[in-house]
Amino acid sequence: MLAEAEIGHRVEKQAFAQAVPGLREALINAQYDLGQSRRFAVIVLLSGVAAAGKSEAVNRLLTWMDPRYIETLAIGHEETEEQQSRPYMWRFWQILPPKGRITILFEHWYTQPGLQYAMGHIGDAELGQRLAEINRFERMLTDEGVLLLKFYMHITKKGQRRRLKQLASDPNTSWRVTRDDAFYVKNYRPVIRSVEEMLRLTSQGYAPWIVTEAADRRYRELVIGQTLLRAIKGRLDATAKPPASQRDGTEFRIPAPDGRSVLTALDFTSRVAPRTYADRLEALQGRLSELTRSKAFQKRSLILVFEGCDAAGKGGTIRRVAQGIDPRSYHIVPIAKPTDEEAAHPYLWRFWRHIPRHGRVTMFDRSWYGRVLVERVESLCPETDWRRAYGEINDFEADLTAGGAILIKFWLAISKTEQLRRFKDRERQAFKRFKITKEDWRNRDRWDDYEKAVEVMVALTSTDIAPWMLVEAEDKNSGRLKVLRTICERLEAVL
Amino acid sequence: MLAEAEIGHRVEKQAFAQAVPGLREALINAQYDLGQSRRFAVIVLLSGVAAAGKSEAVNRLLTWMDPRYIETLAIGHEETEEQQSRPYMWRFWQILPPKGRITILFEHWYTQPGLQYAMGHIGDAELGQRLAEINRFERMLTDEGVLLLKFYMHITKKGQRRRLKQLASDPNTSWRVTRDDAFYVKNYRPVIRSVEEMLRLTSQGYAPWIVTEAADRRYRELVIGQTLLRAIKGRLDATAKPPASQRDGTEFRIPAPDGRSVLTALDFTSRVAPRTYADRLEALQGRLSELTRSKAFQKRSLILVFEGCDAAGKGGTIRRVAQGIDPRSYHIVPIAKPTDEEAAHPYLWRFWRHIPRHGRVTMFDRSWYGRVLVERVESLCPETDWRRAYGEINDFEADLTAGGAILIKFWLAISKTEQLRRFKDRERQAFKRFKITKEDWRNRDRWDDYEKAVEVMVALTSTDIAPWMLVEAEDKNSGRLKVLRTICERLEAVL
Repeated sequence: MLAEAEIGHRVEKQAFAQAVPGLREALINAQYDLGQSRRFAVIVLLSGVAAAGKSEAVNRLLTWMDPRYIETLAIGHEETEEQQSRPYMWRFWQILPPKGRITILFEHWYTQPGLQYAMGHIGDAELGQRLAEINRFERMLTDEGVLLLKFYMHITKKGQRRRLKQLASDPNTSWRVTRDDAFYVKNYRPVIRSVEEMLRLTSQGYAPWIVTEAADRRYRELVIGQTLLRAIKGRLDATAKPPASQRDGTEFRIPAPDGRSVLTALDFTSRVAPRTYADRLEALQGRLSELTRSKAFQKRSLILVFEGCDAAGKGGTIRRVAQGIDPRSYHIVPIAKPTDEEAAHPYLWRFWRHIPRHGRVTMFDRSWYGRVLVERVESLCPETDWRRAYGEINDFEADLTAGGAILIKFWLAISKTEQLRRFKDRERQAFKRFKITKEDWRNRDRWDDYEKAVEVMVALTSTDIAPWMLVEAEDKNSGRLKVLRTICERLEAVL
Repeated sequence: MLAEAEIGHRVEKQAFAQAVPGLREALINAQYDLGQSRRFAVIVLLSGVAAAGKSEAVNRLLTWMDPRYIETLAIGHEETEEQQSRPYMWRFWQILPPKGRITILFEHWYTQPGLQYAMGHIGDAELGQRLAEINRFERMLTDEGVLLLKFYMHITKKGQRRRLKQLASDPNTSWRVTRDDAFYVKNYRPVIRSVEEMLRLTSQGYAPWIVTEAADRRYRELVIGQTLLRAIKGRLDATAKPPASQRDGTEFRIPAPDGRSVLTALDFTSRVAPRTYADRLEALQGRLSELTRSKAFQKRSLILVFEGCDAAGKGGTIRRVAQGIDPRSYHIVPIAKPTDEEAAHPYLWRFWRHIPRHGRVTMFDRSWYGRVLVERVESLCPETDWRRAYGEINDFEADLTAGGAILIKFWLAISKTEQLRRFKDRERQAFKRFKITKEDWRNRDRWDDYEKAVEVMVALTSTDIAPWMLVEAEDKNSGRLKVLRTICERLEAVL
């Protein structure tokens, strides 16, 4: 779920200076209205790896709003004697804000389990158990009307190192670099893996994590400020809060202040010459063949998901991958409308039917993501159904990977212009004509809606165990090579 | 949550013979309507300790309904090779019934984790994690429209031993007694403790456990048949299923076929003579005093909850308990209407304020159970709020006990006649007059509603970590002694 926070968001000085006065006024007003109405309390949790800028964000919020009515606390790292002799949750109940007030916590109920897990004091199972308790606690809070905002401020490994160096070199800030920080830098990968797991298990529709790219100070502060504003105003304006089942975790999403997204950040310029392509393709297919015949693979399975807009080249890509695998051990599953039998079962049933046994490969040409793409955009299922699908899909994929499956999901991306070129091409070529229908043109009209749905999908379902791989398929050759390379590298890493 | 299944329910032969024909016809009709409408699928899980009569119950259901459209399966104990080489949950997805059909599982997704936990192969944390996964799975199923009925068939230790002996002595049934059964008999207490924990963690409003006393064959079979009928008919008649947040786990409750309940099963005849009372009271208070001054108690705390209808004698009982404790180390918290400040916080906040530190005792004169008693009966809070309270209270009490608190909850029960006598008595005696108000008389008019609310409360919140103790307080003396004795015995067992 950190994917959308690694695309180099940044806000220029001037744009920031332009945005702040309005935001500030709106925030103060929202805070005042909240205090007057006393309709609900607001709790803001700030999380993030070391050096993600949590305390700076708090300071900024305090200058933007009226600090007399905001409590800022850190409860998690150290225990008072008072706290030690009472049940663990007691400390948090003591500091819950009353209706009309805001509390910002930069250490909170995630801090202790997170630390203990990172340090190896508790294992997967105990972490899972504690997160389940946290879920029930947050469910209770939001059922009681609390507006709960959980920010996760993400920073890449390089970004983290750079920032810590900066802090350490300045005598005014060097005290802020602690021994814990060194631990996190050294263990960046495993820490991030457990963060992904934590985000997946605790990002419920009623209390979603809001992941923010934190490398650029101006960007992260605008995101936090604007999100807070939108959330408070939205709740004040609403006559009733939406029922828990109708919340999918996108309630608080604001458009990125710099306008960039996982899709617009793609670079469509790379090209591969036909000659190079043929050579590399053959080499990669050979590598894949060896990997899927290896002894280690006989205790795993491989599940590949191919999604992309019409004419993005899914079919051609799947064929190139298939050429690298023994035909007896792969299976291609094209997903279209459900059969009667499939429609009579829970949604995911028709995909479970095709889950491969160990030693085998299944490629899905479109997949369970139809629910949050076409079914969402075309209103083919009730809103409550696709809203709960994100969490269900994450659970489903966790089941798959826990059972030994290696799961890779590809989104083949092309530009709108390229799609038009391919459509026209298809219409001209007799043997490709069956591939283009009225429906394709209709879908094209909803390009923007699909783009938004894809962004939310990647944000909510790209997990460490089942990441989305966004493939620039503008140039078919380079797209296919990237897919094959990704598969080979992933298999090599795992086997 | 097993409390209501230990009161000796039984149905006489004649009553059974009278009930069956009608039930049978209604079940067949419901099954037919379900098949015609194809609106939803039904999954029935049967659980229970050894010798609780699971297979007999299945056989009975199959004779009462059309067995051609019911699948009966056991998936949990043994694994096929097919299952082993796929993700764990795959096996359950393979057997999900389509809409319109019924599947009965007498081994299922609880079987493997339950066994592994009972045998000590997995610990508390891993059990908790697996149950959290099960919750998400069941949530998905019910969101997808599946009607999920989970029966837990309970049998007391004595009942179990008796039945296993019976089975073993008959050559026709002796093969059914396995080595596993011996294990369960030998480890009855720890197994039941983990069952209580499992029921607490997985009894969600959308998929509650239905606990059935299983000692009497006719009783348990009527309960299962009638519950199944009510659930299927209820769903067929409903235009829409209630949203998950509005289900509290009582959707499928039927009146006990034999009319008995935890309250009506109480015996109000015992009396204690004044002389004996004085002696015993003093002895018990002395014991309590020693226990609460012991060194071991300095690492625990004691929380006592007193509930009961008006004039049941809560105040007098609390005073007698207090006399056995050093005044510096106890605190009595009478619960009335919330203050403004309390009303501005989540419901449980006002109780957390009074949670004692280690070495101390807090007695609540009325408590958080107000939400599911007076607030429920008098409609003082929205239905959704009290419905979700049962689960929240269980979580709250789990937090307390995990933090070292010993929690005992007393329901002081008197008969309706005795209440009238005490009311009149109070009106006569000037110094007791302030204790009786118009509200008391009004509450009395709703006696039956309160009684139902108490039964549900005991059923859903009596857990192994925080059991309800029902006290016959018809005779004040004997009630007070029972309370004191219970506290002393519990402290002695724990410290």
